[in-house]
Amino acid sequence: MSFEILAKDARTLARAGKLTMTHGEVLTPIFMPVGTQGTVKGMTPEVLYAIDAQILLGNTYHLYLRPGHELIQSFGGLHRFMGWDRPILTDSGGFQVYSLGDLRKISEEGVTFRSHLDGSLHTLSPEKSIEVQQGLGSDVMMCFDECAPYPASHEYVTHSMDMSMLWAERCKIAHEQAKERKIALINPAQHLFGIVQGGMYPDLRARSVERLQAIGFDGYAIGGLSVGEPKPLMFEMLEQTAPLLPENAPRYLMGVGTPLDLVRGAALGIDMFDCVMPTRNARNGSLFTKQGKMTIKQAQYRDDQRPIEPDCQCYTCRNFSRAYLRHLFISKEILASILNTIHNLYFYLDLMSRIRKAIAENRFDEFKVRFEREYVE
Amino acid sequence: MSFEILAKDARTLARAGKLTMTHGEVLTPIFMPVGTQGTVKGMTPEVLYAIDAQILLGNTYHLYLRPGHELIQSFGGLHRFMGWDRPILTDSGGFQVYSLGDLRKISEEGVTFRSHLDGSLHTLSPEKSIEVQQGLGSDVMMCFDECAPYPASHEYVTHSMDMSMLWAERCKIAHEQAKERKIALINPAQHLFGIVQGGMYPDLRARSVERLQAIGFDGYAIGGLSVGEPKPLMFEMLEQTAPLLPENAPRYLMGVGTPLDLVRGAALGIDMFDCVMPTRNARNGSLFTKQGKMTIKQAQYRDDQRPIEPDCQCYTCRNFSRAYLRHLFISKEILASILNTIHNLYFYLDLMSRIRKAIAENRFDEFKVRFEREYVE
Repeated sequence: MSFEILAKDARTLARAGKLTMTHGEVLTPIFMPVGTQGTVKGMTPEVLYAIDAQILLGNTYHLYLRPGHELIQSFGGLHRFMGWDRPILTDSGGFQVYSLGDLRKISEEGVTFRSHLDGSLHTLSPEKSIEVQQGLGSDVMMCFDECAPYPASHEYVTHSMDMSMLWAERCKIAHEQAKERKIALINPAQHLFGIVQGGMYPDLRARSVERLQAIGFDGYAIGGLSVGEPKPLMFEMLEQTAPLLPENAPRYLMGVGTPLDLVRGAALGIDMFDCVMPTRNARNGSLFTKQGKMTIKQAQYRDDQRPIEPDCQCYTCRNFSRAYLRHLFISKEILASILNTIHNLYFYLDLMSRIRKAIAENRFDEFKVRFEREYVE
Repeated sequence: MSFEILAKDARTLARAGKLTMTHGEVLTPIFMPVGTQGTVKGMTPEVLYAIDAQILLGNTYHLYLRPGHELIQSFGGLHRFMGWDRPILTDSGGFQVYSLGDLRKISEEGVTFRSHLDGSLHTLSPEKSIEVQQGLGSDVMMCFDECAPYPASHEYVTHSMDMSMLWAERCKIAHEQAKERKIALINPAQHLFGIVQGGMYPDLRARSVERLQAIGFDGYAIGGLSVGEPKPLMFEMLEQTAPLLPENAPRYLMGVGTPLDLVRGAALGIDMFDCVMPTRNARNGSLFTKQGKMTIKQAQYRDDQRPIEPDCQCYTCRNFSRAYLRHLFISKEILASILNTIHNLYFYLDLMSRIRKAIAENRFDEFKVRFEREYVE
C-alpha cells in the first residue's frame, strides 16, 4: 500500500500523509463517514462528493446479513452497488457480532451468532470475514478480531488478545492465498489492516503490536478503545500504543470519536478515524460547532435567523437558519436529518482538513491548543 | 396576473401557456410538488431545482399551526424561510380543516377547529386565511372555501357552495383592502385564485363559476373533486366545468392526481395540478414508470441490476439499480425515501414537460392515446 508522509509536526507526533488506493487518494489525517447498510444515512453519493468525503466505512456484519455479500459481489462490489467510486474501508464484522452480547458465542474457530434481523444462525471466522470483504471489494479490509469488554481481567484480555492475534494471522493467510490462487477478485488490490488489542493493559498492547508486525500488514488499527472506559484511560492507552506502531504505515483509531478526540488523536500520530457520532447526532438534532454541540430543538432557536455557524461553508449553513432547522426537526421532517447530517459531516471533514493544513504549516500544536480552549465537549 | 397561452391543441382542449409571477415563470400545464410543512419531504431545494420543479405548493393550515405565519413573516416569507426562490402557491387551509372531521365546526363566519398537533382551538375564516397567506408571501393565494363531502344532497351542496362563494367574495375584499391600505406585504404582487365548488351537481358547478367570474380572480381552481367519488364521475364534472372557465386565466385542478389524471386533465384544458401521490408513494416504495407503478420491495427486484426505468434521466435511474433501491427500502434507510422521491417527482415533472411539448407540436391527442395504451393504472 502506498502511504506517503507529507509533513510532520515538530512539537507533536502528528503527521500529514497520502494513502493511494485503487479508487483514489486519501489525504490523512482523515475521518471516514460510516455507511453501515450500503449508505451513509440520508446522504446521496453526490452530496458526499460535494462535502469532499474521501473514503467511507462499510459494515461487513450488516452487509453480510442484508443484502448479502454474494449479491453485492454479483454487482461488481460495494462501490458499484451503492454508486460510490472513491475508496471504501470495511470493518471485519468482529465488533458488531461482539456487540450482540447473548446472541453470540465465541470459540477459537470463530463467532457463532444469531442475526439481529431474523434470528437466523451464522458463523463469522477470520476466513469467512475475509471472504465477505473480498466479495464487497473494499479498498481496505480489516482483520477479524475479538474486542475485549471493559472492564476485563488481565487473564481474560491476555487470552482474548492471543486469540485475536491468531485470527489476524489466519486473515493474512486467507488474504495471501486468494492472491496466490489467483481467485477472481472484485478488487485485486485490496489491502489488509491488523488490529491491536490488549484492553487497558499496556504490556498486552505492546505484545499485540509486536505480533501484528511480525505477521506484517498494510496498516495498523487500534481497536478495543472507546468501549466504556474513562476518556483519560483511553488516551493513556493511545499514548503508549501509537508510538509502537511502524512509522511508515497508516494508523487507524477505530470507532473514535468526538471532535476533541480527533484533534488529540492526530496529535498522537493517528491517520484515520471513523465514528457514527456526526451522522447519528445529526439525526437526533445535535449539531457540531467550533464551540461545542448545539441542540437544535431548544426554544432559544425558535426565531433565530442565523445559520448553525456563521462562518461555515456547508450547504446547510449557506442556505438555512437555525429556526428553519428547528422547525424541520420538531416537525419530524426527513429534511432535518439530511441538512443536519450535511452540516455535521462537513464539520468533521473540515476539521480534518484544518488539522492537515496546520500540520503542513507546522503550527498544529498551536491549532490544538486553540481548539481545546474554544471547543467545550 | 400574466398568463400567456403559447399553443393550443387542435383535437383536444389542451393548451400550453406561461404564468409570470414575482418569483419567476411557470410553463403550463404544470405539476406542483407538495411542500406541506415548508419542505417537500426528503428534498433539498437544490435537488428540486435539479429536477426542474418550477413551483411548489405550501399548506396554510400546517404552516399556520407550526411554526406559525408570524414567524415565517418575520423571516421575509416562506420563500426565504425554506430557501426556495421560485414561485409558491399556498392553499387556503380550507380543505385541511374540513378533513379534520369531528375536530371542526363550520359556521358562516368561518371554521373553528382543534389543532391535530396539540388540540388547541383555532378559527380560520376567509379574512384570516388571506392574512396567513399574506404572511407566507406566496405568489398565488387560494380562496378559503368549504369542500363538500361525497356523497352529499343537492340541498347540502347548494348551501355549502353558496357559503363558499360568499367566502370567496370576502377573500377578494380582504386581498383588495390590503392593497388599498398599502399594508406592508411580504409579497405585494400576490395573486388570488377562486375555487369552483358544487359537488357532483353540474347546475351548482355552473352557478359557482358564474359567481366567481362576477367577483373576478387571477385564476380559477376546481375544488371538491377526487374526494371519494368514482373516477368517471370526477371526469364528468371536469368535462362540464372546465369549459365554463374563462379562457384567458389559468385553471387549476386541486389535489389531482395519477399520471393518467394529469394527461386527461390537460386534455380538458387544465393548466395546473398538485397531489401528494408522487412524494407519498415514493416513501411507501411505490415507483412510477411509463407502464404503471412498481412496488420496489418485491422479491423479483432482489438482484435486478436495471434502473427503475432504463430511459429515465433522473439522478436515481442514472446511478442506482432496482436491487439497491429494494435493499434501501427494506433496510428502512432515509436514502430510500430520497432516491424514490427524486424519481417519482422527476417522472411527474417530465410527464408535464412531454405534455407541453406535445401540445406545442400539435400532437397531444396522439400522445394521450399512446399514454393511455401504455400506462396501466
